[in-house]
Amino acid sequence: MISEEVLKGMFQPRTTPWRTSITKVEPNRLITQGYPQEELIGSISFPEMIHLLLKGVLPNKNQEQMLQAILVSFCDHGITPPSTQSARLMASAGSPVNACLAGGILAFGENHAGAIEIAMHMLQEGVKLSRNEDVALDETAQKLINYFTENEKKIPGFGHRYHKKDPRAPRLIELGRKYDCFKEHSQLAMHIQDQLRERKGIKMNIDGANAAILSDMGFDWRVGCGLFIVGRIPGLLAHIQEEKTQEKPFRKLMDVDTVNENEIINRF
Amino acid sequence: MISEEVLKGMFQPRTTPWRTSITKVEPNRLITQGYPQEELIGSISFPEMIHLLLKGVLPNKNQEQMLQAILVSFCDHGITPPSTQSARLMASAGSPVNACLAGGILAFGENHAGAIEIAMHMLQEGVKLSRNEDVALDETAQKLINYFTENEKKIPGFGHRYHKKDPRAPRLIELGRKYDCFKEHSQLAMHIQDQLRERKGIKMNIDGANAAILSDMGFDWRVGCGLFIVGRIPGLLAHIQEEKTQEKPFRKLMDVDTVNENEIINRF
Amino acid sequence: MISEEVLKGMFQPRTTPWRTSITKVEPNRLITQGYPQEELIGSISFPEMIHLLLKGVLPNKNQEQMLQAILVSFCDHGITPPSTQSARLMASAGSPVNACLAGGILAFGENHAGAIEIAMHMLQEGVKLSRNEDVALDETAQKLINYFTENEKKIPGFGHRYHKKDPRAPRLIELGRKYDCFKEHSQLAMHIQDQLRERKGIKMNIDGANAAILSDMGFDWRVGCGLFIVGRIPGLLAHIQEEKTQEKPFRKLMDVDTVNENEIINRF
Amino acid sequence: MISEEVLKGMFQPRTTPWRTSITKVEPNRLITQGYPQEELIGSISFPEMIHLLLKGVLPNKNQEQMLQAILVSFCDHGITPPSTQSARLMASAGSPVNACLAGGILAFGENHAGAIEIAMHMLQEGVKLSRNEDVALDETAQKLINYFTENEKKIPGFGHRYHKKDPRAPRLIELGRKYDCFKEHSQLAMHIQDQLRERKGIKMNIDGANAAILSDMGFDWRVGCGLFIVGRIPGLLAHIQEEKTQEKPFRKLMDVDTVNENEIINRF
Repeated sequence: MISEEVLKGMFQPRTTPWRTSITKVEPNRLITQGYPQEELIGSISFPEMIHLLLKGVLPNKNQEQMLQAILVSFCDHGITPPSTQSARLMASAGSPVNACLAGGILAFGENHAGAIEIAMHMLQEGVKLSRNEDVALDETAQKLINYFTENEKKIPGFGHRYHKKDPRAPRLIELGRKYDCFKEHSQLAMHIQDQLRERKGIKMNIDGANAAILSDMGFDWRVGCGLFIVGRIPGLLAHIQEEKTQEKPFRKLMDVDTVNENEIINRF
Repeated sequence: MISEEVLKGMFQPRTTPWRTSITKVEPNRLITQGYPQEELIGSISFPEMIHLLLKGVLPNKNQEQMLQAILVSFCDHGITPPSTQSARLMASAGSPVNACLAGGILAFGENHAGAIEIAMHMLQEGVKLSRNEDVALDETAQKLINYFTENEKKIPGFGHRYHKKDPRAPRLIELGRKYDCFKEHSQLAMHIQDQLRERKGIKMNIDGANAAILSDMGFDWRVGCGLFIVGRIPGLLAHIQEEKTQEKPFRKLMDVDTVNENEIINRF
Repeated sequence: MISEEVLKGMFQPRTTPWRTSITKVEPNRLITQGYPQEELIGSISFPEMIHLLLKGVLPNKNQEQMLQAILVSFCDHGITPPSTQSARLMASAGSPVNACLAGGILAFGENHAGAIEIAMHMLQEGVKLSRNEDVALDETAQKLINYFTENEKKIPGFGHRYHKKDPRAPRLIELGRKYDCFKEHSQLAMHIQDQLRERKGIKMNIDGANAAILSDMGFDWRVGCGLFIVGRIPGLLAHIQEEKTQEKPFRKLMDVDTVNENEIINRF
Repeated sequence: MISEEVLKGMFQPRTTPWRTSITKVEPNRLITQGYPQEELIGSISFPEMIHLLLKGVLPNKNQEQMLQAILVSFCDHGITPPSTQSARLMASAGSPVNACLAGGILAFGENHAGAIEIAMHMLQEGVKLSRNEDVALDETAQKLINYFTENEKKIPGFGHRYHKKDPRAPRLIELGRKYDCFKEHSQLAMHIQDQLRERKGIKMNIDGANAAILSDMGFDWRVGCGLFIVGRIPGLLAHIQEEKTQEKPFRKLMDVDTVNENEIINRF
């Protein structure tokens, strides 16, 4: 016979258990952020679900429309990004779709998809600074530009490798105003653009615009790259499908001769 | 001096170049499936964009509504799936968000998220068979069940590890009818369910329902797992964020003592 | 008070616990395949440890030497493989080293590193057939070639995208003879080479040679691709390090102009 | 007719080409770090090849022996690490071997395998400081401990989640002395251990020992995590193989009931 006390001691949990507040799983029942899933299916849009998952509450109508637009804007940039090239290389090598998608995502490193997150971080810190120290936003913009320039870093969210004038940025800003998602962070971003355009002829890019609006919608900067991935995954999937169905398997993307032998790097 | 002919020979492309029909990239211009991106942003919904990317054309209104519902239905299954556990393990180990998402996706193997793809394949082959050999759909259902049963395989899209009655499946079928996406593949799936319920008390699950409707919407079975991932990525992101912000880093999910030493496997 | 019987019922394990026979972990003690790790460190070579982990026993001296040679042979193929390009793309995008390595590994799909596993499978089935049905190995070789030729498939382990005569294969076969690892599977592989060379002028490649010898060493074909990865990982790491230290970050590997717009694929 | 000058201008490379100094690929010829691969195969050991790939030169005999021991020491830690659990989760879900390995590697985040790299960085900075500012190593040790303690960070390479006394560390240090790889970095690490043991009863772990010795062997701290992965990959492969062959596919590692519903986290 074992007393309850002894029992309690014996089975004292020694490891942190898995736990979550996102979805409660019971037999025949799935409750996500408080709502039974069968009630959400067919009642809310996919971006509403994304908002619910990441922020715990449903968005209002304006926020939903804005999020639709933002997710659409991330869609695709043709064959140029490392992520797309990686996903297609893997598809060509015969890897299954999920491995190709994972491979594409792994190429979203600091230099690639990182900009949106760094831009959100910068804008959120900037607005905090403005509020706490009562500094005007245009002054904050100047401080931020100086900071990055002095540290010889590119200002995240401005300028583009391929586009002098990223056509997606002004459209997003326009929609931000329309859907009441243009607030302090967007204002700060516009001040930065004004000053950068004058100083260096550089304009806001898609990352800068989305970073500003997502910040004004209350998203934490730490989910910035994740949201980019949510929006880009369908494009990667389309590329993988195209590679698998339209190109010969394991196609040769490089010839021995194209390896630039004259420019061999001396590493040591 | 080099003649044009010699020149042509010299630079004859020896490797297949990268190429795509998805997005045309020009300076300051991005044309996706024929539409300038700045016109798509704010005009179409995210699921419309997903449809456009994967099928090359925009969906009609019913198809869009159906796709919204399908993507919502993939959202999350709490802490139970290997994919979610993997993503959280990586988050706990301090990996960046994109690596955690990639890790989660890598756990969608044949046994995990594979079911939807196999179910789509089965239904699409079944409907083809019915059409080509003029076999009634209920008879095809019987043939498919027999085939899987004789090969001692589970029928993909039916039965669930956690739910005797998956609450998401009937809701999706109901919406399929509402949005005119309930056609031959869905009929075949219902026949399978009828016969399985009688024989074994097994019901259609979310994979079976989505496999049927996506097939009736004209999606190739090879994108089934990819679409599942598109819908599940936001849920994985929410779990990663929760792990990173709510749990202690590198938490111990296992004690030395919990490794079952009495049951050590003899592999050799 | 709770009786032991009740207790037993209450805590009946409902889930399969994690368990392993590879390493026993106790406080201050790690026993791998029966040996305390501190005794293995400094006493056995790295390939001996690899053999111990994968086969449960230490190799003999010949087998160890052979495994050293095989692992060396997998080392690197310059910039040409999709795996190397993927890993470098990720390094260029600023991903951390482990993400770059994972990305490289994901490109080892069916068409890339798959050959060694398929070759091992083919040779192991071939030798079984020869033994069970008392068929001479040269006859089995002929049957295998016919099978692949009739199904319009390449014979795995023979022929190479870049090399008409893979310099690594004959060296490995020579070492197989030297280290007493040249047995039935290698004989079968040589018969295939003899017949292929005559019929089509095709020779054994590194995958064919390693597949034969690893099979003669008793490795299951299912670890073939894994062993390839063990041997290739250091090379991938060297490429990642080179990309990170010798190239500009996020370098442009493609120009908008190089996207072949004239050859756009019509997918639909 | 085109002049050479015009030609040169036309084909001015606008993108950085792929290039490498690791392996030169020519038809029927592979030259790695200056050596034809067929000469390396069978002549050098696997760790010698790893040294050659990462440092550009072959190690001396002592260094080779040391590297064998270090790579053996990374082998496995049973079922406890997040990386092993992730790899097995993916294997259980039916993912192919390379995806499982990639998944395992993705769990080597900052908190998991990161310690060796941070330890190498710390020791290399410490030794530089000692040399440049002529500070005794025990004094540097004190400074480093103070720095980490003041910033409330764990000192990398010391202490272990499971072992009060990591049995691998003293064995590695002993071998470092034997193989003439115990120099300034190892001395600094020993000073840190002496002071930590006195202050907090904490001892050097495997990461600390390997970080010290690898630094004394001249390895850059940026390859620390990569070398750990090279040594751990065979162990991960053994676990994947064990999961795939000894456990039921897609086994349930969690019951609905085990999800701790009472402790649901409130994230918002």
